[in-house]
Amino acid sequence: MSNKRENISMSVIRRLPRYYRFLGDLLKHGVTRISSRELSQRMGLTASQIRQDLNCFGGFGQQGYGYIVDQLYREIGKILGTDKRRRAILIGAGNLGRAIANHMAFETRGFDLIGIFDQNPNLIGQVIKGIPVQDSRGLEEFCSRNHPAVAVLCIPRESTHEMATRLTKLGIKGFWNFSHYDLSVHFPDAVIENVHLGDSLLTLSYRVSELERKE
Amino acid sequence: MSNKRENISMSVIRRLPRYYRFLGDLLKHGVTRISSRELSQRMGLTASQIRQDLNCFGGFGQQGYGYIVDQLYREIGKILGTDKRRRAILIGAGNLGRAIANHMAFETRGFDLIGIFDQNPNLIGQVIKGIPVQDSRGLEEFCSRNHPAVAVLCIPRESTHEMATRLTKLGIKGFWNFSHYDLSVHFPDAVIENVHLGDSLLTLSYRVSELERKE
Repeated sequence: MSNKRENISMSVIRRLPRYYRFLGDLLKHGVTRISSRELSQRMGLTASQIRQDLNCFGGFGQQGYGYIVDQLYREIGKILGTDKRRRAILIGAGNLGRAIANHMAFETRGFDLIGIFDQNPNLIGQVIKGIPVQDSRGLEEFCSRNHPAVAVLCIPRESTHEMATRLTKLGIKGFWNFSHYDLSVHFPDAVIENVHLGDSLLTLSYRVSELERKE
Repeated sequence: MSNKRENISMSVIRRLPRYYRFLGDLLKHGVTRISSRELSQRMGLTASQIRQDLNCFGGFGQQGYGYIVDQLYREIGKILGTDKRRRAILIGAGNLGRAIANHMAFETRGFDLIGIFDQNPNLIGQVIKGIPVQDSRGLEEFCSRNHPAVAVLCIPRESTHEMATRLTKLGIKGFWNFSHYDLSVHFPDAVIENVHLGDSLLTLSYRVSELERKE
């Protein structure tokens, strides 16, 4: 199975969280079993795509019987790493950072948010979701004591490169990057998951333009 | 050219905002001309990919001369629709909605944010980026007067379906959807651009797990 995993494309990977969400919902609603056909209708995918996707991970379905929801949910959770408890820190306690800290359930997605940092004296000492904002100057000490694995970057793009360099030295392996800076070009060895909100808004603009052209 | 556009894949489209960002940066730094090779190094793409991508839109480069940065920037901007001024409203003035309103430069991406709505009496009347939060009950009147084209949804997933139904009736054609609800399955005719932050965090979790497996 681990051999199999090596070749899984990022597009399959990117669909897994969605499967995970749908299955979590089914569980909540007391559904214990589901066919690929039924799942496909709910998710707006084809049944064969679903079978293909899930086959990549060893295929949990049984012909003519469907998937056992909680088994599949747990398996996908394991693949996604939600059974792990990795430590995360948040850099940047401005509007966006604060919203992310308040809004995201890190703990259901394999992470514990253990520290929040900013360099703005007005923000240092404020408490967000029970976590006091610390001075960024304390990052070295904090990381050597607590060994966070990932950092959430909610800082201006101008500071991103320097901060990522510093954090990489402190053992950070993964970045959840909200700045509009393309970290991946400069940090090829780190895991970088970008949330480029501006790019997403531009894509919306493009697609609405296309719609108007067709009308 | 419009015929050409019909067949452009979403993966090319999704790279355009990134080109747009890079070119905007080059402009800011006074760069007037750039070869596909130089651009490729900065962006971490291959030169042939860049030529291919930009060819989809009619090819602005000249052999042996490169791209004229501001021309390419303006052309891509036009394709993305940043030369338009479309009206947007934001639904949900909680942590996330507030961060989006404060943090995003809508106006540089083809949109004017003209209204913010919430149903929470504690939020109604608050002013975010100069815009007072209005009672969601006033949406019908507001939309019939102001004709917004898109809505940013920062509401809980339980309310998303109902709200999208209501907004579609009010003429909203595009949704920037931050809720973890898969609108596209139920609103196939609308343009839906999802920002599923939870899915992105799960993808990070997966990729960090993979990294650890390899170590």
